Amino acid sequence: MTELRPIEWREQTLYLLDQRRLPGEEIWVACCSAEQVADAIASMIVRGAPAIGISAAYGVVLAAQRYAPESTALEQALVRLADARPTAVNLHWALARMRAVMHKFPGDGAALLDAARALHAQEHQANIRMGAFGADWFGKCTGLLTHCNTGALATGGVGTAFAVINTAFQRGALERAYATETRPWLQGMRLTVWELQRAGIPTTLLCDSAAASLLASGAIQGIIVGADRIAANGDVVNKIGTYGLALAARTHQVPFMVVAPCSTIDWETSNGTAIKLEYRSAQELLRLGEVPLGVPECEVYNPVFDMTPASLISALVTEVGVIESPDHSRMQQWRATLQNKAG
Amino acid sequence: MTELRPIEWREQTLYLLDQRRLPGEEIWVACCSAEQVADAIASMIVRGAPAIGISAAYGVVLAAQRYAPESTALEQALVRLADARPTAVNLHWALARMRAVMHKFPGDGAALLDAARALHAQEHQANIRMGAFGADWFGKCTGLLTHCNTGALATGGVGTAFAVINTAFQRGALERAYATETRPWLQGMRLTVWELQRAGIPTTLLCDSAAASLLASGAIQGIIVGADRIAANGDVVNKIGTYGLALAARTHQVPFMVVAPCSTIDWETSNGTAIKLEYRSAQELLRLGEVPLGVPECEVYNPVFDMTPASLISALVTEVGVIESPDHSRMQQWRATLQNKAG
Repeated sequence: MTELRPIEWREQTLYLLDQRRLPGEEIWVACCSAEQVADAIASMIVRGAPAIGISAAYGVVLAAQRYAPESTALEQALVRLADARPTAVNLHWALARMRAVMHKFPGDGAALLDAARALHAQEHQANIRMGAFGADWFGKCTGLLTHCNTGALATGGVGTAFAVINTAFQRGALERAYATETRPWLQGMRLTVWELQRAGIPTTLLCDSAAASLLASGAIQGIIVGADRIAANGDVVNKIGTYGLALAARTHQVPFMVVAPCSTIDWETSNGTAIKLEYRSAQELLRLGEVPLGVPECEVYNPVFDMTPASLISALVTEVGVIESPDHSRMQQWRATLQNKAG
Repeated sequence: MTELRPIEWREQTLYLLDQRRLPGEEIWVACCSAEQVADAIASMIVRGAPAIGISAAYGVVLAAQRYAPESTALEQALVRLADARPTAVNLHWALARMRAVMHKFPGDGAALLDAARALHAQEHQANIRMGAFGADWFGKCTGLLTHCNTGALATGGVGTAFAVINTAFQRGALERAYATETRPWLQGMRLTVWELQRAGIPTTLLCDSAAASLLASGAIQGIIVGADRIAANGDVVNKIGTYGLALAARTHQVPFMVVAPCSTIDWETSNGTAIKLEYRSAQELLRLGEVPLGVPECEVYNPVFDMTPASLISALVTEVGVIESPDHSRMQQWRATLQNKAG
């Protein structure tokens, strides 16, 4: 199997594999400007918190190619990237890193491109480490369930939660992966099943609402998800449905694992209730892709994310290690250890 | 608003409103034989436990028109009706009632038709009483959530859980109904939203997986569902997703109500784990109606129902009254009271 690389930079252009069309069609979208990258993020051509961050970093490279250093136009392009999706913190983290390089080496396009490539490569390495940490933590399992898509498509690397499943399977420690379909965008059905099959992993698909029943059946020994933003106390914002899965996992005493790079942790936000959640259009439910479902127009409650309190999380896996039963004090201790090591 | 009557008998024929095509198209399917009725039940032209029971009763009328009393062909037709869907107990209850009439008045088609009509009318009256009992129990609410479809389409009357919502709204005691879309058949999106709008009730649609987030938002003061079978201890088998909703409701201390006629209670089955659940085809997830979703073929876990333990149910509403916090002993006491009244 060739490695899936859905984010590629070549010849001054960012190529993104259009995730809205997969798996039916493999269409690449070429972005030649920061504005095009922002639109690709907003319209979900590229999605998944880490993949959004990487794309935005390349977007900064494109902006700096087009606009003069410290110009208003450059600043506007960066703001537009930052505003493309409201919830994922990786986006802001990536932009902050790129801004730092820009200030240090004003007008140096090569330095910016190196920084974007380094960020991309670093996310890739982080994914590999998370996969190993998560698989170590689980040991042998007959079945693991995941929600939404956290594979190469979502991360630009080998995945977060997906990497744990893939690593466990490659080690012979996992028999079967279960994937929710993940309404309304069907990321699970369209993207995760496609990636799992590509990796040769026996896969079972289910409706989002069948997960509690699957837990009751005893078929799975864990639920693994990614994260779009993690608060300083360990509360996790992730794809809508995550919270309900965590509640059901707790009832059935099945571990609930969150896998995300450190760039997903928002140390400035004390808890999950303070995180702004994105609501998207009613049409995402009332149509399937571009096909209307033939249902009446009506008001729709369509939050993209929900918030899972840290108290429901068994293990938070990052590229530098695992925090079990995260809470405010464990998160702070762990942060201090990291800073000491770095210092 | 004219009352919705999706099951109609006229001119020796059973007419069923095809629920697979709603709300885009209103197509009536004419059934002239018991076999056609069995096929309509199996293929979900008609669905919803009470509606299945009523349809099967008319199916017996059709079988008795075609086949000689006590013939093998008649018996085969009745078995085929019984086997059309495995879980709903109303089907077996309706067939048992019709068999009793058949044995008492062999060859008397008019008596059978009267019995089917009486059963239909009785379900209708039962719905009205359940609506009132349920609305009394809730009192004033800003929002109530329901799952799947339990309106006229599912019951042949005015609904079970749907009747509670409608009654509460007509009394001015409810501001807004929330409906899950109910994958994979989208009964909530297609049928419940259509029925709620038809009744003039302000309606919000959500993905199944957004219900826990809606509970966390404080927008709803109750969840109301129907039932396909209720065990003697109060365990409830209902549409897939019901169990997860009940778990989330318990966490948020929001009442969880089940509304079903007494014909849904299976006194012969001591608890829910003993009830045979139906699993349906992978194609129900991999296609939407007849449209393939363009996803890979894969194994699918597609249980139609799940089991919610009685311990998660705040109130079980039937046409003869409300059982709060049902359990084995409360159910038995209540049954004894009913039998004493009847005797």
